[in-house]
Amino acid sequence: MSKTQLGPQTLIYPMPAVLVGANVDGNPNFMTVAWCGIANSDPPMLSVAIRHERHTLGGIKQNLAFSVNVPSTDIVKETDFCGVTRGSKVDKVKVCKFKVFYGKMETVPLVEQCPVNLECRVMHMLNLGTHMFIIGKIEETHVSDSCLTDGKPDVAKIKPFSFVSAPAMNYQSLGAVIGKAFGVGKELQ
Amino acid sequence: MSKTQLGPQTLIYPMPAVLVGANVDGNPNFMTVAWCGIANSDPPMLSVAIRHERHTLGGIKQNLAFSVNVPSTDIVKETDFCGVTRGSKVDKVKVCKFKVFYGKMETVPLVEQCPVNLECRVMHMLNLGTHMFIIGKIEETHVSDSCLTDGKPDVAKIKPFSFVSAPAMNYQSLGAVIGKAFGVGKELQ
Repeated sequence: MSKTQLGPQTLIYPMPAVLVGANVDGNPNFMTVAWCGIANSDPPMLSVAIRHERHTLGGIKQNLAFSVNVPSTDIVKETDFCGVTRGSKVDKVKVCKFKVFYGKMETVPLVEQCPVNLECRVMHMLNLGTHMFIIGKIEETHVSDSCLTDGKPDVAKIKPFSFVSAPAMNYQSLGAVIGKAFGVGKELQ
Repeated sequence: MSKTQLGPQTLIYPMPAVLVGANVDGNPNFMTVAWCGIANSDPPMLSVAIRHERHTLGGIKQNLAFSVNVPSTDIVKETDFCGVTRGSKVDKVKVCKFKVFYGKMETVPLVEQCPVNLECRVMHMLNLGTHMFIIGKIEETHVSDSCLTDGKPDVAKIKPFSFVSAPAMNYQSLGAVIGKAFGVGKELQ
């Protein structure tokens, strides 16, 4: 099997597509982020990478707090809209008809239409170059009741989707189950 | 729409499933990681979160270098195997029949069967609690020639898959394209 070297590329698959939210000068704003992941188990933490010039980043700095909202395939247009427009020029909440609510933390806006909402407190901010890399402690998790089964989050109801980078530049839903985690590999033992 | 509060949860969808590799005492070892993401655009960086007790972490500390290998659905069993076994007790490379190669960095083992391989140099290590959070600079990218179209990575050929956390605990392939990124949202403008 031969390989081609492409130089340093930001190539991990699949990436999520989430909405990161913050109050900017007191007004809720949301942006689309694919560069987001879990950072720690206990205490629960996550990370987001945001370009320095983004409006939402200003709000995160003001409050040292932010939200991560997992959208469903039902609002893929709204999710993309929050990535292609600027909060300094457009009221994204109004255009997207987002119902904004607040949970445990008073300055962290959450999107009701997103099945999963995480409230986060900033723990670390690292300037890595083009992006500010933010590690947040997850303070509370909200899940839409319609996306729970026996009181637990049900991915088949949440219907999250993936961002696939260039050259594809698509959003893709989740496909078939191909194996049980912590299970299918045991066949090789 | 009503919401249920679940307390702090590490709930982001979808997460990737990748193989993180390092030489431990000179021998290549790989572990499965879902908590992995892109951290910066220029210079290209990524992050991985690894439990302190993992064998692979020892190798990363020894070399201050590691690899991220994106597996395809063809090797979902091998990928899971690297998550449920310990490198200190099992030769995972042998059991999985991985063909290991080295690229630009002499101490970073790469898996030939994974369509995408990233060589990384450690830039930051943060002890966040249960996990060591590592930010690496991507030094080189290798893509299998069979997964390129017009010289560029083709996700339909790469066939990556997602790790879906509890209670599902499944690996899922990518599904249908549901919209063009930086495109479908413009309809709302």
